[in-house]
Amino acid sequence: MRVQRIYPPPGREVSAIYENLDLPPAGYHGAARPYVALNMVSSVDGRTSIEGKAAGIGSPTDRRTMRTLRSKADAVMIGAGTLRAERLSLGLDASGHASQPLAIIVTDTGDVPLEEHLIVPDGQEVLILLSDAAPRGVVERFGKLALVMRVPADPTGAVDLDGALRVLEAERGVESIVVEGGPGLNHALISHHLVDELFLTVAPQLLGGSADQALTMLDGPELTFRPTLELRSIYSAESELFLRYSLIHTILNCA
Amino acid sequence: MRVQRIYPPPGREVSAIYENLDLPPAGYHGAARPYVALNMVSSVDGRTSIEGKAAGIGSPTDRRTMRTLRSKADAVMIGAGTLRAERLSLGLDASGHASQPLAIIVTDTGDVPLEEHLIVPDGQEVLILLSDAAPRGVVERFGKLALVMRVPADPTGAVDLDGALRVLEAERGVESIVVEGGPGLNHALISHHLVDELFLTVAPQLLGGSADQALTMLDGPELTFRPTLELRSIYSAESELFLRYSLIHTILNCA
Repeated sequence: MRVQRIYPPPGREVSAIYENLDLPPAGYHGAARPYVALNMVSSVDGRTSIEGKAAGIGSPTDRRTMRTLRSKADAVMIGAGTLRAERLSLGLDASGHASQPLAIIVTDTGDVPLEEHLIVPDGQEVLILLSDAAPRGVVERFGKLALVMRVPADPTGAVDLDGALRVLEAERGVESIVVEGGPGLNHALISHHLVDELFLTVAPQLLGGSADQALTMLDGPELTFRPTLELRSIYSAESELFLRYSLIHTILNCA
Repeated sequence: MRVQRIYPPPGREVSAIYENLDLPPAGYHGAARPYVALNMVSSVDGRTSIEGKAAGIGSPTDRRTMRTLRSKADAVMIGAGTLRAERLSLGLDASGHASQPLAIIVTDTGDVPLEEHLIVPDGQEVLILLSDAAPRGVVERFGKLALVMRVPADPTGAVDLDGALRVLEAERGVESIVVEGGPGLNHALISHHLVDELFLTVAPQLLGGSADQALTMLDGPELTFRPTLELRSIYSAESELFLRYSLIHTILNCA
């Protein structure tokens, strides 16, 4: 497999994608919340799922790159809907890794099929970020499978993500998170100015699918806050593109 | 404005995107239908419209590139829904161009707001591709504004696109077409193996929007036929990407 880094130029062959990446990047000065990078794979027509599942869109190179990004972060986060949709792991390859990132699952209600759908490699801790608005009984359900961190709810009953991230940094020392969807969690994080980077794999596929079945990267109302995206790098391998963007947040403080 | 061609490497600065492109490409051996290239602009999250309109997603460089592609083709084609959604031109810049591409609007019903929404530069001919299933009375409505070509309908009443393209080549000498959407026409053309290339501008924006309001590049059922996409080139300018893919059609003839 030839992998070429083509932007910034000149292109050159590399042995793996993002192998020298640091999260947070060097020179980043810490905030009160962890550094947050989204990582998604989409078809050329913008679809991020086939029958609800992301599996099958990206190539083996994409899956290897996903694990590389996970290895750079303190934690990997998904929304509970993504776990309900398919059986998956949030860890690194089983063998040879000294430390697994913390697996974080965000849920407003506690409807998390942990035993059925989450594959947990040796050495990985699992943390359920549960809204305070969820029924109290659900905590016992997770038993010894996971830590449960109850966090404040916003007025709609959803997890207050800004508050939750701050608690993760303050109480768990989490300084960097890779978020792998789904589109509802991505939309909520971006709407609240909580995303620093976007890693997007564009798989050389056209999928189609009616809008209600085939998800895109973001699910939610049209963004009223539109971050400026700055292209950082492009890698390509066999017509698959690996794009890295920074999100530039211009927050107006209206007095 | 610095524009860089970054794939295939090495990257180098160019004065304009696709200025030396040929449609059909050199070495292409003619078929019974015109060579078809889709040209679309999408946000990073795969959205191709804001409130139904594509205008506003791409940059001035994208709009210049759209006109360059039009100048390479014998015809520019859209679906009637795209014209209903916004006022637009399918021509080149008004000044200095010897020949305008033929403007083609595809419609199953004849509902085409020609006078209200189509801006027609001097020297451009307009052709309405109208399904045989449409009421006969609609032809007079277009009067001297456009030629009307009635073409066979498929069993659903939609224009038989394969047949229509063959007629355009045989009767009008159209050898290359740039198609600019909308997503229904794109989906129909791809489903019928009628697209040779895809030019996609990825604007450095995140738009969001609920699925029923914010269109993606393809609108229709999940594709049962999935073309293989081969990346041909990438240009970038100020974080906007200009991707060119070939569609590789593997048609199995099952005896």
